[in-house]
Amino acid sequence: MSSPDKQAGSRFWNEKTRLLTPYVPGEQPRGQSFIKLNTNENPYPPAPEVEAALNTLPAERCRLYPDPDSLALREAIASYYGLDTEQVFVGNGSDEVLALAFQAFFEPAGPQDKPERAVVFPDVTYSFYPVYARFYNLNWRTVPLNDDYTLPVDALLQPSGGIVLANPNAPTGIAADLDVIERLARQDPDRLVLVDEAYVDFGGQSAVSLLAGCDNLLIVQTCSKSRALAGLRLGFALGSPALIEGLKRVRDCFNSYTLDRAAQAAGTAAFAASAWFEATRARIIASRRRMTAALEQLGFEVLPSSANFVFARHPLRSGASLYDDLRQAGILVRHFNLPRIADFLRITVGTDSQIDEMIRVLKRLLL
Amino acid sequence: MSSPDKQAGSRFWNEKTRLLTPYVPGEQPRGQSFIKLNTNENPYPPAPEVEAALNTLPAERCRLYPDPDSLALREAIASYYGLDTEQVFVGNGSDEVLALAFQAFFEPAGPQDKPERAVVFPDVTYSFYPVYARFYNLNWRTVPLNDDYTLPVDALLQPSGGIVLANPNAPTGIAADLDVIERLARQDPDRLVLVDEAYVDFGGQSAVSLLAGCDNLLIVQTCSKSRALAGLRLGFALGSPALIEGLKRVRDCFNSYTLDRAAQAAGTAAFAASAWFEATRARIIASRRRMTAALEQLGFEVLPSSANFVFARHPLRSGASLYDDLRQAGILVRHFNLPRIADFLRITVGTDSQIDEMIRVLKRLLL
Repeated sequence: MSSPDKQAGSRFWNEKTRLLTPYVPGEQPRGQSFIKLNTNENPYPPAPEVEAALNTLPAERCRLYPDPDSLALREAIASYYGLDTEQVFVGNGSDEVLALAFQAFFEPAGPQDKPERAVVFPDVTYSFYPVYARFYNLNWRTVPLNDDYTLPVDALLQPSGGIVLANPNAPTGIAADLDVIERLARQDPDRLVLVDEAYVDFGGQSAVSLLAGCDNLLIVQTCSKSRALAGLRLGFALGSPALIEGLKRVRDCFNSYTLDRAAQAAGTAAFAASAWFEATRARIIASRRRMTAALEQLGFEVLPSSANFVFARHPLRSGASLYDDLRQAGILVRHFNLPRIADFLRITVGTDSQIDEMIRVLKRLLL
Repeated sequence: MSSPDKQAGSRFWNEKTRLLTPYVPGEQPRGQSFIKLNTNENPYPPAPEVEAALNTLPAERCRLYPDPDSLALREAIASYYGLDTEQVFVGNGSDEVLALAFQAFFEPAGPQDKPERAVVFPDVTYSFYPVYARFYNLNWRTVPLNDDYTLPVDALLQPSGGIVLANPNAPTGIAADLDVIERLARQDPDRLVLVDEAYVDFGGQSAVSLLAGCDNLLIVQTCSKSRALAGLRLGFALGSPALIEGLKRVRDCFNSYTLDRAAQAAGTAAFAASAWFEATRARIIASRRRMTAALEQLGFEVLPSSANFVFARHPLRSGASLYDDLRQAGILVRHFNLPRIADFLRITVGTDSQIDEMIRVLKRLLL
């Protein structure tokens, strides 16, 4: 059959759909094989315990809906962090969890908006935040990071309708100390502070220890990075039972079962696999040190990273041109054509041999 | 640590979150073993091809994000239906697909709302539709089904801002003829008609054949019922490339990767497994006939079902009391305490031995 014309059909898009600016995820190449350092995946496979859980997933049970409460998985996460099960919410990747949090807790824009009631986040951070803020029509604004790309703590301490932070921040990799998070949370107990800890296991300090004293703190984490489960879509939130219940209320107006049986089984196994988790994250942290030193030797400025990637720029080459040349050479990294960071590349910490190959190629490109 | 008080924390819920009425899915019992006829799952396992795909899912690859475009799965679905790949959208269960469609295509409520611009759906239908309509703050209204629970075609032909139909309808099981769908679609080519065909493989007529002539038709289906994959969360939409692109735009403002590697692999295998699919749906249709006859012998009125469930009431017993008695006897069915249908039970077509046991119990209860 012939395909109707795209433009013609767009008469069915409502006004909001027509005006959307969707998030663009990093490229997932098909066919051609790259050294893939562009989406911060773990270079090591999931734990053997996860493999066992997946290989023994009873296909027969897949005819039945999964547990909508993901109880076993939430218990495993709660036990790992010393929390109660009702302090844990799980979702289809941390993106879904973040989207639900933006919907549940922040105020929509209105005719009487005041800047001091806007939810704030840094100008340079995870680029999905402004997409959510626009999509859910929030009252929001950004605060500029300091010149050295650290958090502008004084600006964040000013009145606002909520704070969203990635810690460590993306794409800079820079971590804030726990006492900064604590100051932000304690300064106004009626203001929600959402801390996105997607990369915390690679050297940051988790704010989980603050939850007992701060019921205005919501922590979001993912199994996509340190647990090597990007392919199974597993994110979670930690916070007071009331915040968790708010996320659940919003989810249950949208999709009751967002975590399938494979994801629940794999996630539960991943949180029991502490030896593998510790060993692989230590390897990644060690590789990051090697990679940072090698990049610096080539003349790169490398921001101090506590994540499984580094953010680096070279004084003699634009980010866009280096990105293109690396891609040509079979090495995929991430480049953001955005204000303040267009000269940087975000490079995932791969295996040592992947890093060696990238450094070899960069040496040639920079000759 | 001690749990903060739920009510106290609810100061962070925004006004919308406070006012939500979430959807309540059917019970997924833990521990106690029931004859589970309450959520319309398939009584037969997924196809052997699906089992093979799950058992050979490479755990190592789970460290990488899944294909955000689910290309192999969309190609398998397109090929099954003789459509182009860009006419297929896939999501985390048909609930997610429906939620995205409600967001993408229907107009929000506003001060100048007119009833003739409201999106309409029947008063008795899938109970998630009003949840979506409220959650996305749409201009919407319901039209009452006829007294015999068939579609009120004349009322649906009146001007509106969109039509949402389940065909076969839930929880009645009654199917509308294809010429009814065609009349609704052709009457106003600028009005979107969303047909939810979750149960179509059990005896309904799919509107897929109308897509070539009607670019205002969007069909939503699921792998949870006839493909026995409720546990893997897989739904899809079929329509013009422009409608599919609208769904994608909305999804990409929310969560770029909603289908994990297990779901994509299982779904792709399920669409190749036509022998298993045909055999199991034929068994379910045959069991439905047996079950309907047995219920009628016990005095039940059974609506004519084209789904994998029947909707039945008994002249001497209320729906609520029969539900309770069946549950007590270890048989779980679904009861909706809603206007016009509170005396009905929705009973999933199980295996023949499950049906025999239920009939045996009902005989005893009705003595």
